[in-house]
Amino acid sequence: MRKVCVVITARASYSRVKTVLAHLANRDDVELQIVTTASALVERAGRVSDVIRAEGFTISAEVSSLVEGDTSLQMVQTTGLGLIEIGSVLQRLNPDVVVTIADRYETITTAIAASYMRIPLAHIQGGEITGNIDEKVRHAITKLADLHLVCTAASKSNVIAMGENPQSVFLAECPSIDIAKSVINRRPIDFSPFNKYGGVGKEIELTGKYLVVMQHPVTSETSLARTHVENILKVVSRLSIPTMWFWPNVDAGADATSKEIRRFREISDSTNIHFFKNMSPEDFLVLINNCSVLIGNSSVGIRESSFLGVPVVNIGTRQLGRECAENVVHSGYEQAEIESSILQQVKHGRYSSSSLYGSGNSGKLISEILATANLTTDKKLNFQ
Amino acid sequence: MRKVCVVITARASYSRVKTVLAHLANRDDVELQIVTTASALVERAGRVSDVIRAEGFTISAEVSSLVEGDTSLQMVQTTGLGLIEIGSVLQRLNPDVVVTIADRYETITTAIAASYMRIPLAHIQGGEITGNIDEKVRHAITKLADLHLVCTAASKSNVIAMGENPQSVFLAECPSIDIAKSVINRRPIDFSPFNKYGGVGKEIELTGKYLVVMQHPVTSETSLARTHVENILKVVSRLSIPTMWFWPNVDAGADATSKEIRRFREISDSTNIHFFKNMSPEDFLVLINNCSVLIGNSSVGIRESSFLGVPVVNIGTRQLGRECAENVVHSGYEQAEIESSILQQVKHGRYSSSSLYGSGNSGKLISEILATANLTTDKKLNFQ
Amino acid sequence: MRKVCVVITARASYSRVKTVLAHLANRDDVELQIVTTASALVERAGRVSDVIRAEGFTISAEVSSLVEGDTSLQMVQTTGLGLIEIGSVLQRLNPDVVVTIADRYETITTAIAASYMRIPLAHIQGGEITGNIDEKVRHAITKLADLHLVCTAASKSNVIAMGENPQSVFLAECPSIDIAKSVINRRPIDFSPFNKYGGVGKEIELTGKYLVVMQHPVTSETSLARTHVENILKVVSRLSIPTMWFWPNVDAGADATSKEIRRFREISDSTNIHFFKNMSPEDFLVLINNCSVLIGNSSVGIRESSFLGVPVVNIGTRQLGRECAENVVHSGYEQAEIESSILQQVKHGRYSSSSLYGSGNSGKLISEILATANLTTDKKLNFQ
Amino acid sequence: MRKVCVVITARASYSRVKTVLAHLANRDDVELQIVTTASALVERAGRVSDVIRAEGFTISAEVSSLVEGDTSLQMVQTTGLGLIEIGSVLQRLNPDVVVTIADRYETITTAIAASYMRIPLAHIQGGEITGNIDEKVRHAITKLADLHLVCTAASKSNVIAMGENPQSVFLAECPSIDIAKSVINRRPIDFSPFNKYGGVGKEIELTGKYLVVMQHPVTSETSLARTHVENILKVVSRLSIPTMWFWPNVDAGADATSKEIRRFREISDSTNIHFFKNMSPEDFLVLINNCSVLIGNSSVGIRESSFLGVPVVNIGTRQLGRECAENVVHSGYEQAEIESSILQQVKHGRYSSSSLYGSGNSGKLISEILATANLTTDKKLNFQ
Repeated sequence: MRKVCVVITARASYSRVKTVLAHLANRDDVELQIVTTASALVERAGRVSDVIRAEGFTISAEVSSLVEGDTSLQMVQTTGLGLIEIGSVLQRLNPDVVVTIADRYETITTAIAASYMRIPLAHIQGGEITGNIDEKVRHAITKLADLHLVCTAASKSNVIAMGENPQSVFLAECPSIDIAKSVINRRPIDFSPFNKYGGVGKEIELTGKYLVVMQHPVTSETSLARTHVENILKVVSRLSIPTMWFWPNVDAGADATSKEIRRFREISDSTNIHFFKNMSPEDFLVLINNCSVLIGNSSVGIRESSFLGVPVVNIGTRQLGRECAENVVHSGYEQAEIESSILQQVKHGRYSSSSLYGSGNSGKLISEILATANLTTDKKLNFQ
Repeated sequence: MRKVCVVITARASYSRVKTVLAHLANRDDVELQIVTTASALVERAGRVSDVIRAEGFTISAEVSSLVEGDTSLQMVQTTGLGLIEIGSVLQRLNPDVVVTIADRYETITTAIAASYMRIPLAHIQGGEITGNIDEKVRHAITKLADLHLVCTAASKSNVIAMGENPQSVFLAECPSIDIAKSVINRRPIDFSPFNKYGGVGKEIELTGKYLVVMQHPVTSETSLARTHVENILKVVSRLSIPTMWFWPNVDAGADATSKEIRRFREISDSTNIHFFKNMSPEDFLVLINNCSVLIGNSSVGIRESSFLGVPVVNIGTRQLGRECAENVVHSGYEQAEIESSILQQVKHGRYSSSSLYGSGNSGKLISEILATANLTTDKKLNFQ
Repeated sequence: MRKVCVVITARASYSRVKTVLAHLANRDDVELQIVTTASALVERAGRVSDVIRAEGFTISAEVSSLVEGDTSLQMVQTTGLGLIEIGSVLQRLNPDVVVTIADRYETITTAIAASYMRIPLAHIQGGEITGNIDEKVRHAITKLADLHLVCTAASKSNVIAMGENPQSVFLAECPSIDIAKSVINRRPIDFSPFNKYGGVGKEIELTGKYLVVMQHPVTSETSLARTHVENILKVVSRLSIPTMWFWPNVDAGADATSKEIRRFREISDSTNIHFFKNMSPEDFLVLINNCSVLIGNSSVGIRESSFLGVPVVNIGTRQLGRECAENVVHSGYEQAEIESSILQQVKHGRYSSSSLYGSGNSGKLISEILATANLTTDKKLNFQ
Repeated sequence: MRKVCVVITARASYSRVKTVLAHLANRDDVELQIVTTASALVERAGRVSDVIRAEGFTISAEVSSLVEGDTSLQMVQTTGLGLIEIGSVLQRLNPDVVVTIADRYETITTAIAASYMRIPLAHIQGGEITGNIDEKVRHAITKLADLHLVCTAASKSNVIAMGENPQSVFLAECPSIDIAKSVINRRPIDFSPFNKYGGVGKEIELTGKYLVVMQHPVTSETSLARTHVENILKVVSRLSIPTMWFWPNVDAGADATSKEIRRFREISDSTNIHFFKNMSPEDFLVLINNCSVLIGNSSVGIRESSFLGVPVVNIGTRQLGRECAENVVHSGYEQAEIESSILQQVKHGRYSSSSLYGSGNSGKLISEILATANLTTDKKLNFQ
């Protein structure tokens, strides 16, 4: 029975592979191993490791590795701390293939450990193009990986163009679309996020128009993170449309973002914003699916929202370069541009569904490939 | 004044960049910073950090990071341990550009630290093709690097084909050839290695034909390392040609190799082999320059020896895929094939000099690029 | 010139040695080196490293080491991470004596590094008796230390009784009393904490009676930390006396404490509590010096408050066993007992000043000893 | 069923607790967990982890942690690296009590992890007095430990005098004497060490008088380690008595020692010395039990040899302060004194057996205490 070890380093990564995990867990020819590490183990980021357990999966190992601090130095240390322990975890679990997801800085830990230990490495979401350090991490992991499970046709051709063997590259859709598909008919909202998740701020009205904001610090612009958030807070406050605001990732810059949100809450008398930390991926997407505009720089705006047809205002450089469907309007960080983009999208309303990132079949496709693909750790630059 | 920080992780890496360091140290527009780490700090591997100091350079920081052990687990841990400390070293030294050399597993530490901390990263010897984990490491570093200083025309086109911006890729020759050039006329041998470096075993005759052996463990075949060395020892012992044997790198598999050499020395009554640990790069190349055949799997056989025209028997998979000049004969691990290959090369004698890896001008070229090139940390996949 | 290296791991430790640092910095026969690490580098804990710099000292090195998480596992990892880097920092700074302060878990890092590297180790505040893991850490450090700078006569006799050479044990008062002495005449309050430090919650009246609360999580009772804080919040809220509440240390349990405070702020309509993160040690003590009762389990209640004569309600086990002056009333965690203890102390009012922990001369005494004491790293169990 | 976790960090530690492990493994009320780490996992030190497995025990976890290098910096790093991983190992194994042995520098890792995680810690061989850093480590561990299993009456009174609760201190003999007892009648030698263990050097005669040497580097005198070994080598060589020489521990200074031995072997034509790396504890003691004099600074000379009545020349400061029986003659590092001490002991011959360190019952006693003692992690300084 093939042992498939999936390493999850953050809340968002879990959402992305949830359907893959479910399909793997259901297969008779696979033993699923889940390892959680980095911000997946941290209270401030909602300890997604506990969420995974609560949703019925078994965690094979937790690797505590997040070094606290708000600079890139701690990103380097976190990567190192994870490496020190993950090797012996892999030695103990002895998987046939290790799966790493996307391009967060700490995921290179998994890629290095598996490749140095000669365990075949599968990489989900390679070949995409964005700004930021993620761009470097993503392609470096492609060069360490043996199996590439990409989301779009363009990503597939990018990975092959970089010298990977075409037979190791599979167009397998994006698993985040699977969850989007499961909620697309849940309109209007069928639960109370306030009762279920608490959060802070007055309860807001969700039956009419409302906005959702999710703005992560952009690692390359740490010092600006605070201003970016302040600008969005001011615009959203001024518009007086009910708003659900989600706390950012635990990353370099996150402290600044959080501090600005706290400062704003103390000095402002806005009553139209409610702040949440975490939700289940499904509930989160139901909120998105029913909102008027999703604002910020989350990849959810690019991926899930394209399938849902939700209007998006994508702010700043974080997603720059990523393939977009027509639902996305790009904006800079200036208040005026953010405001006019939001109003433009409110006016436009819902878009038709795009299958750019998949049709909701990815969990099945990826689990099938992981269970049956030919596994090897030998490869060389391959240019046809 | 531009601060250029060169990170050296092993004896061989120092040899390769020695002329680059000399040129950088002589420039008025550059402040040279040298950081040593991993096996460069280890007694068993000749503590090249002390050698560098003895040759007149200043070491800005030493980062102790080599975890002892003979498996790939320790490779992973060594990479992690280095990451934990090198970040604060880079923060303290605050360089304008960081230089990493070639493709040893622990060099990815430097690449991650610099790229995560947004310090421009220059990579020497990218774009080449070989077997082994080095192949993955080398190309992953290319994807983290901002400036590519490649050795051959084929390497240049490989790096660009992987999606790097052509303007960031410089054909700058291989600096190892610079040292080869400086010794090419030192024939016959003009010093006594026995007096200068000791070593173990009887003194052997160096005025006539003699062999040099340098066989590193191949990480992917750790368990076989001992047999490989045993086979070479037996062939060389049988041939009764005077032989200089160099101790291997401190890598996974090195313990097995060393153990086999020690065992052989105890049981065998061969008197034609003398064993050395380390030499200055120049003295080492003088020995190569005067030998009849260089045997093993060191890249010196491929690079420096092509320029020197020294006959080489390259054994096994370690250098597979690397561009070779006509001086190299490839052999498997069987005693019969090794023996016949050696005899073939003894018979052939010296080859004419090849400039495949350079003409001896690399230190000057690379230092000029490091001192003056436009430095940035922003890049995206770039396919023309 | 003797190099004295003081390692500071937390906000409270800095307050305690501030006058020692000032005296050391002013001596001609001493070169002062300050190293900050662990929570001294963390935003959530007020980055005391920046405060130290702002107050005119030079930081020789920062050692990032705090692993994020709310369990004892991260305490172990933080200790380990600090060890990995502090050794090379000490090697670089090459001090003649290293100073470690008190008994927080991460201070054993300094003690191990110095003793293993044969650098004489001085320990401030040894020999005291408390509950908790601090008790073990404190005495273990005594056994690693070469020079003992204790605060009370009883501590001195305890250290000697443990087998330390009497000539290495100095009764040098507690440096925290030095700062207490410098503010003892600042009555009434002569600055606005709201203008200077912000904080959250309505501004409260400080001209009449007011309370100060500082309750740290007790590491051995992590799961109870939340209930303890809830009880104090309820009592203080019910009493309706204006209250300044200080955020706890960044320790195991701190997340629970902070979460409870946030939850309370959301659901309660109390308007008599203002919450602060950090203040300069002096401003903090001025607030204490003018309050009616100091509540919680901070050692400030035992030490500085005894000198200031401020009434204290010490809650729970954290300070159990520590020598107290008459200003302290001990209470359990029950609301009724907390409430009656507070009322008792409000009624009693100010106590006369005690010199149990010193007379304000400690910085001078300790700096003199550090500058001139005979230094050695050799010792053996010594029972007269 | 009580889970007892024994952490073994070195070859010598295993020998010392072997009978304890055997008794624990045989008990119905105990689940034995063995964790190996540091030099127990290193080839150069004979990978005692493999030996333990070969002798029928199960290893629950291996924690790779030995940082390579010959200075005290690496001792600090090794301690830190172990801490980073051992916490999660203890979390996974969830023992009721953790056992740490003696006083090697890296054993403090176990003591810190267990005490910070509130797992009761038992310490074997506390309360003894020696020179060196071991002295500090041993007593610091006593202050972290909850249960003290001491070897001698004097050790017991020392531990209690340091402030430990007398009810937590058990005089339980030294388990090393158990193995000594099992071999005391194996005279003459009943196996060939050359056939069984190889080693290097000519085979020597073991039927008449022969010497055994085991000299560890003394950490506080690293730079002198080479001279010490050279002196012993010269004396032993000059005496021309057949000699079995055992390679030293993998510690700071060990590289120097090994280098000196290798150098000596190359230049000397002595044929009376045979060099061994490792043996089973029993075989090793049989060799001791039959030798004329044991020379060096191993604690085997003080402990096992006192019971066996073997004449010992103890060289230098390493064992200074330790309780000795009459079988030990102390010598400095000078050749003349070493030589005369050896000749004195050869002349004297065998001593009568001493029970200073036990009577061979320790494994039983200690396992009984570990299985049944009251376990707690709360303690305070306790001076009657």
